[in-house]
Amino acid sequence: MKLARVAGTVVSTFNAPIFDNQRLLLCDLVSPAGEATGDYVIAVDVVDAGAGETVLILDEGTGARQIMGETTAPIRAVVVGIIDEVDV
Amino acid sequence: MKLARVAGTVVSTFNAPIFDNQRLLLCDLVSPAGEATGDYVIAVDVVDAGAGETVLILDEGTGARQIMGETTAPIRAVVVGIIDEVDV
Amino acid sequence: MKLARVAGTVVSTFNAPIFDNQRLLLCDLVSPAGEATGDYVIAVDVVDAGAGETVLILDEGTGARQIMGETTAPIRAVVVGIIDEVDV
Amino acid sequence: MKLARVAGTVVSTFNAPIFDNQRLLLCDLVSPAGEATGDYVIAVDVVDAGAGETVLILDEGTGARQIMGETTAPIRAVVVGIIDEVDV
Amino acid sequence: MKLARVAGTVVSTFNAPIFDNQRLLLCDLVSPAGEATGDYVIAVDVVDAGAGETVLILDEGTGARQIMGETTAPIRAVVVGIIDEVDV
Repeated sequence: MKLARVAGTVVSTFNAPIFDNQRLLLCDLVSPAGEATGDYVIAVDVVDAGAGETVLILDEGTGARQIMGETTAPIRAVVVGIIDEVDV
Repeated sequence: MKLARVAGTVVSTFNAPIFDNQRLLLCDLVSPAGEATGDYVIAVDVVDAGAGETVLILDEGTGARQIMGETTAPIRAVVVGIIDEVDV
Repeated sequence: MKLARVAGTVVSTFNAPIFDNQRLLLCDLVSPAGEATGDYVIAVDVVDAGAGETVLILDEGTGARQIMGETTAPIRAVVVGIIDEVDV
Repeated sequence: MKLARVAGTVVSTFNAPIFDNQRLLLCDLVSPAGEATGDYVIAVDVVDAGAGETVLILDEGTGARQIMGETTAPIRAVVVGIIDEVDV
Repeated sequence: MKLARVAGTVVSTFNAPIFDNQRLLLCDLVSPAGEATGDYVIAVDVVDAGAGETVLILDEGTGARQIMGETTAPIRAVVVGIIDEVDV
C-alpha cells in the first residue's frame, strides 16, 4: 500500500455501472514525508476523503472489489483509509 | 487506474479469439494535466473511444475479463471510461 | 519479495475493519546491502517487527490475505519475516 | 499489454514440466514507434513468432495460464499476437 | 518472467511455515546479456540453483504457490529454471 494526497476528482462518462455512484479521486502519490513523487493514481473513494487529505491507497483488484462489495467490478485502486499520522 | 490519451489502433493477427471483434487501442499514459508520460499501454476498447480522447485505463486481468464478459480471455488492460474533466 | 527496513508506523482512521487490530508499518525498501532505495511500502505487520529491523516484504494481495487468515481484506503488503542475515 | 520485438530464445533446464514443449522467447519491449525501451520480458510463445517480429505481450499470470490451457502452470508472460501495424 | 543471477541466500526467522524447509535466494536481475540491472528479488528456490547461476524468475503469487504445491503460502517469486543459454 502507498500514501497519497487527494488532489481532485475525475468526471467520466460511458464507464461501467460500478462507477455510477462513486467518486473517482485523483490521488498524487507522496513520500512518507508528504512530498509529491510525481506519480498518481485514480482511485475509488470509500472513506469520503477530502481534497488535500493524506490517504492510504490499495492498488489491487481483488481487494478493491471486496471493499466495494462487488465481485465483478472493473476497479483496481481504492482509498482505504485517511492517514492521521506517520510516526518515523 | 490511470489516465491515457488514445493515440491510435493496433492491428494484429494470429491472436486469441477474444480479440477478433475488439478494437485494440494504443493509449499514451498522461499526467493529470494531460501531458504524455512517455509510457503507453495497449488496451481493449469497451467504450468506443476515439483518437485523441482522454480515457480511464484499468490494467488488471480479472477486472478486464469481467468487463468483457469473459472468464478466460488473455487480456489485462481495458479502456473503462472516457474522461470529461479532471477537477484539481 | 523485497527487503525493507522498518522506519515507523502509520496511524489511520476511517479504514477497513481488518486494520483495527493491526499495526501498519512504514517500510523503506532497501538494497541487499541495506541501503535505502528511496522507495517504500506500507505493510501490515504479522511478525511483530521493530523499528530499524530488516524485514521480508510480500507485496501480493492473495498471499497477504491468506497470512492474515482473511479471505476478503483490502490489503496487499505484509511483513512476512525478519531478516537475520543476507549471505552474498 | 505491451509491444515487444522477438530478440531470441532462452534455453533452460530443470524447469517446470509446462515449459517442456514450449519455446521461451526473449522479447525486447519497444515503444509504439518500434524503438527498444531497454527493458525485456521472457515470454512463452503461443503464436509461433519469429525473430524480429513485433508482438503483443500479455504479462498476467491467470490469462497466461488460460491461453496455455493450463490451470496450474508457473508462467506469467505470453506472446498473444503478432502485430501487423500500429496506426497512429 | 525475468532473468536473474543468484547472488546469495537470505536467512530469516519469525516467518511463515512455508519457508521452513525452503532456501530463499537473493537474485540480482540481469539483462539478456547478463549485466546486473541494479534491481533484485528474493525468490524461493525450487530448482536447487547455485550461486552465480543464471535463472528464470517467476514473480507472480498464484503461479508461485502452485509450483510449491501450496494453495495458501505467502510467496510471490520463485526460481523456476536454470538458464543454459540465451540465443540472440
